[in-house]
Amino acid sequence: MRIKDEFKQEAVINATVKLVNQIGFVSSSVSKIAKEANVSPATIYIYYKNKEELLVSTYVEIKKTLGRELLKNIDEAKPFRDILFNLWMNGFDFITQNRDLFQYTEQFASSPYSDLVDSREYDVYFEPIYRVLKKGTEQKIIKNVPFEMLAAFIFFPLMTLANPKLCKSIELNKETIDQAFSMAWDAIKL
Amino acid sequence: MRIKDEFKQEAVINATVKLVNQIGFVSSSVSKIAKEANVSPATIYIYYKNKEELLVSTYVEIKKTLGRELLKNIDEAKPFRDILFNLWMNGFDFITQNRDLFQYTEQFASSPYSDLVDSREYDVYFEPIYRVLKKGTEQKIIKNVPFEMLAAFIFFPLMTLANPKLCKSIELNKETIDQAFSMAWDAIKL
Repeated sequence: MRIKDEFKQEAVINATVKLVNQIGFVSSSVSKIAKEANVSPATIYIYYKNKEELLVSTYVEIKKTLGRELLKNIDEAKPFRDILFNLWMNGFDFITQNRDLFQYTEQFASSPYSDLVDSREYDVYFEPIYRVLKKGTEQKIIKNVPFEMLAAFIFFPLMTLANPKLCKSIELNKETIDQAFSMAWDAIKL
Repeated sequence: MRIKDEFKQEAVINATVKLVNQIGFVSSSVSKIAKEANVSPATIYIYYKNKEELLVSTYVEIKKTLGRELLKNIDEAKPFRDILFNLWMNGFDFITQNRDLFQYTEQFASSPYSDLVDSREYDVYFEPIYRVLKKGTEQKIIKNVPFEMLAAFIFFPLMTLANPKLCKSIELNKETIDQAFSMAWDAIKL
């Protein structure tokens, strides 16, 4: 078995993100990605069977990073609304500081490649969030609706507001962020 | 001046949407689009200066259609919440019945081409919606926040829920749609 070189793997993932964001999934070939990452195509084929696996794996790695970042400094002993605000702000920071990674995940999620993802690969990173939301539902703090419905009103508006292409007229500052969070809260609270 | 042939123009727009959704903006050339639309590239250059203008114009045409569809059977004399529910359901119907058009607009809005759009070309189609929301704000029915902030909680969750790739676990039926609308309503109401 070959020992994977973490540094090279990171370079390959960054090159994949950069190229896909620039020229799209179809035009991004393994050879172009290799060139961008400054490695040989053969090196990429050590890690990944083919282009599909590289694209899917890049998505999974970004989701894992997102999961870790969302949960940064989360204290489950705090009041529910505070925990949610922390999650929300962590999400906001991740999107604004990693716009390239985030753009990749958005494109990927709408592409046919998303059917190839096994979400169990990264679900464990989001498990604490599901647990917090479940507790909020059980304690009758938030509405008893599916997780994806909660996400549609907590995290998707956040993704919209943090995307300068979709949200041209709102300047994001403490006041507008608090306003947006309190609207998300009003949507989900019981 | 050449007289534009509406039928051909529609064929070109449909071909643009189909090809861009399949292979992306970068790979979609005027010659490929012409082939897909069964017209000559020269015909496309009668209508559009270049590929950029074709892509932008296709987006603008879809936005006009969306604006018209959103306002279908809207009765401004009704109570505010009912008007909003009508708009929401019209949006829902448009997305589920025109998934290809909608996918194009989503990709387009996140692409660099979106900087080339002059929103005044289609703003007039959305003007009645701005007016309704403005009236709701003035009558202190909904929160006094920018239009884009309202849209982030009314229409973006809808786009998420109506996208089967993003929302895999929720079956959309009368109950879940009502639930989602009432969450949007809770987010924006005063």
